[in-house]
Amino acid sequence: MSEPLPHLIEEIIEQSSQDILSNDVTTALAQADDKALALLLESLPIDERLALWETIAAKRKLGVLIEMRSDPREVLIENTDANLWQTFFIDIEAEELLELADSLPSALLEQAYAAMDKVQQAYFAQANEYTEEQIGHWGTHEFLSLPINAKVRDGLRLIRREMPRHCDLIFLTNRSGQFSEAVPIALLHAQPEHVPLVDIALDDINTIMDTESCLIASKQVQLSGFGALPIVDENQKLIGRLDVTTAAELSFEEYERQLMAGAGMDEDEDLFSPVRKSSQNRAIWLGINLLTAFLASAFIGMFEATLQQVVALAVLMPVVASMGGIAGSQTLTLIIRGLALNQVTPANVGALLGKELKVGGLNGVIWAIVIGAVAVAWFGDPMLGVVIGLAILLNIIAAATAGIFVPVLLDKLKIDPALSGSVILTTVTDIVGFVAFLGLGTLFLL
Amino acid sequence: MSEPLPHLIEEIIEQSSQDILSNDVTTALAQADDKALALLLESLPIDERLALWETIAAKRKLGVLIEMRSDPREVLIENTDANLWQTFFIDIEAEELLELADSLPSALLEQAYAAMDKVQQAYFAQANEYTEEQIGHWGTHEFLSLPINAKVRDGLRLIRREMPRHCDLIFLTNRSGQFSEAVPIALLHAQPEHVPLVDIALDDINTIMDTESCLIASKQVQLSGFGALPIVDENQKLIGRLDVTTAAELSFEEYERQLMAGAGMDEDEDLFSPVRKSSQNRAIWLGINLLTAFLASAFIGMFEATLQQVVALAVLMPVVASMGGIAGSQTLTLIIRGLALNQVTPANVGALLGKELKVGGLNGVIWAIVIGAVAVAWFGDPMLGVVIGLAILLNIIAAATAGIFVPVLLDKLKIDPALSGSVILTTVTDIVGFVAFLGLGTLFLL
Repeated sequence: MSEPLPHLIEEIIEQSSQDILSNDVTTALAQADDKALALLLESLPIDERLALWETIAAKRKLGVLIEMRSDPREVLIENTDANLWQTFFIDIEAEELLELADSLPSALLEQAYAAMDKVQQAYFAQANEYTEEQIGHWGTHEFLSLPINAKVRDGLRLIRREMPRHCDLIFLTNRSGQFSEAVPIALLHAQPEHVPLVDIALDDINTIMDTESCLIASKQVQLSGFGALPIVDENQKLIGRLDVTTAAELSFEEYERQLMAGAGMDEDEDLFSPVRKSSQNRAIWLGINLLTAFLASAFIGMFEATLQQVVALAVLMPVVASMGGIAGSQTLTLIIRGLALNQVTPANVGALLGKELKVGGLNGVIWAIVIGAVAVAWFGDPMLGVVIGLAILLNIIAAATAGIFVPVLLDKLKIDPALSGSVILTTVTDIVGFVAFLGLGTLFLL
Repeated sequence: MSEPLPHLIEEIIEQSSQDILSNDVTTALAQADDKALALLLESLPIDERLALWETIAAKRKLGVLIEMRSDPREVLIENTDANLWQTFFIDIEAEELLELADSLPSALLEQAYAAMDKVQQAYFAQANEYTEEQIGHWGTHEFLSLPINAKVRDGLRLIRREMPRHCDLIFLTNRSGQFSEAVPIALLHAQPEHVPLVDIALDDINTIMDTESCLIASKQVQLSGFGALPIVDENQKLIGRLDVTTAAELSFEEYERQLMAGAGMDEDEDLFSPVRKSSQNRAIWLGINLLTAFLASAFIGMFEATLQQVVALAVLMPVVASMGGIAGSQTLTLIIRGLALNQVTPANVGALLGKELKVGGLNGVIWAIVIGAVAVAWFGDPMLGVVIGLAILLNIIAAATAGIFVPVLLDKLKIDPALSGSVILTTVTDIVGFVAFLGLGTLFLL
């Protein structure tokens, strides 16, 4: 069972300084599956991680590495005795090597490739004709298929011999290897043995295109009600299948990618990555943000004279910017979700903009009044209330507009809105907010 | 197949003004499954959504409603002819009613409940003993089970009669209905008929506790390699099962919830919700944000005299606050993911803090130098460079600390860090940034 074994983290950290693990811990580790060990290793600081790695049996190490994220995995790969790899690679399969490929130094990758038989090598080569974003890269080759003229008896013979996980369909293919139909295994039991399989085949089974994105393909399988769906190429040739467990793993990864992208990181980020590496990973995002912050400052700088005379403007500036940022991020989040589900299209963007502008207008007026009143009460200047109220209204409306157009345009340019949408949006709302507030202040308060 | 039919959105919007849909569109709609129609309805502005709803056959409407999110669904429920419900509810099952329960007015809920037979009513009542966050609420009752003394022949007879989706196991229960073991259906075919099922049962199948959270239970099923796992109560009584499709749906909902929570919305938010409702939904979040923004302003207000004399401080203020916010959100995101995977525990928080402080220190020094240099070049005042550099360094270190402690404390208090973590964090980094920058400015620049 793939429990993350969080209760072991403390004991291992304590015990690893004594160079020996207690029997309890050793037993728990031996009983844990590869996924649980992978999660546990990722949860440990580097020294403890390496110490635990030493205690794991050599024959389990490859399985554990496969389950880990790239960054924490690389730390272990670098610290694994070079002589061990030969043993690891004895029975390695194409699918396992594909999981590891990104983290392996090229010499080890070649060694692993050479250790596989011709069939696995061919699978490996086929997978690498696709990018990691295409489902063709991740399809598996454990499936049941029969010629199109096979009978129920052939089907029964096949399932008695082997039964891959999540297998509720037998795929029928023609002589050129093209996928034709699928037969639910459940139907075999209630049929006479001489019935042709095509007679009980489903006529509306969905196939997945090899070039489809992993996210859409995974969703297709997970909502299909079947354990797996066939993957075909443009000639309808059956090249593999995608089962629900692989689909779930790909979905988790995609979800993590989105979550981490919102903060400019990737899903392979290690909890305990070395300080220098971690600083580098994050520096780009901080740098981009710095440019946008200086841009906002440059706009503020245009109003230095005003700020000097009405210092209340400097005090209240963050309020205007932040209300715009929050309002915009709400629209942005709604549109990002809509784009991901194909629910936002050129046809309804206009209607969406109309609705968001109305929501923004209503919220803008309400908050303009509230904030204006607070400003008047605080600084005793009614005109300041009018100025900040107008600036808030303008900025919330600008936020609604940017919240729609920024993600739609990014999506059109094939840039992930989850990654860069929020930086661009807050740049817009910062600048509009500062310029509106300080500009109106210059007009009405000097 | 559940395509979202995005290409239809435009045609429907155009054609619905003419009160008649073209044959092409009607055919496409008839062929689409319930999920696809649900996504399509959600993608349409209210008027077009209601117009399309009218054209959908009465016998499909319940199925489509079940697939929709609550908010867009409620719009349709309010606009559905009261007489139709009687027909909708004829064959309704407990699981369907559970999906709808939140959106139905209580009179309709009672009507639906009364229309179900005793068995379904009992399932409905059992599910409602759990909260929506507990997996017991969502377990299904379509599974295969046999008494513990059953033989292979009984198993074969059972699967010839019925075969629920994602069913690769037969559950064995004792006389009190307690779950005992599970038999892989694939093994039945290769066994003599008189073999007792217990002889070929798995001894390490995982059960799911009825009170387990939906997210953890779903992950357990999705990574188990089985099509479904049994759900048991505290007495080990078999109360249902969770299959991979239901698990995938629960996971999607949880992802959406997290994504939307980051902007203070919930996953049921309608793309085209009525303006007043939408404004209300978002107002709370804007209000909370406003309080934190005014709090930051209050701290700035303490330095009015300084700002009046050194206006450059007002110009550069946003840079200090925003660098802290970004650095903090990176740590926060990493910790939120770690908490979700049970990888962050009291045992390694100390080590994580140490690492993040080092990363923050290194990045802080680098960016302090960069930003200090820009400030000197811009305003020609070396002391200003020192002041902003120190403020940046302090704020990035504060951000790393808050990025760890805010989510860990929220998690301990059972508050979702994905919802409120970022607001609290940026409040901290805003205040620390402004106070450090303006405070140091007061000390060194006046």
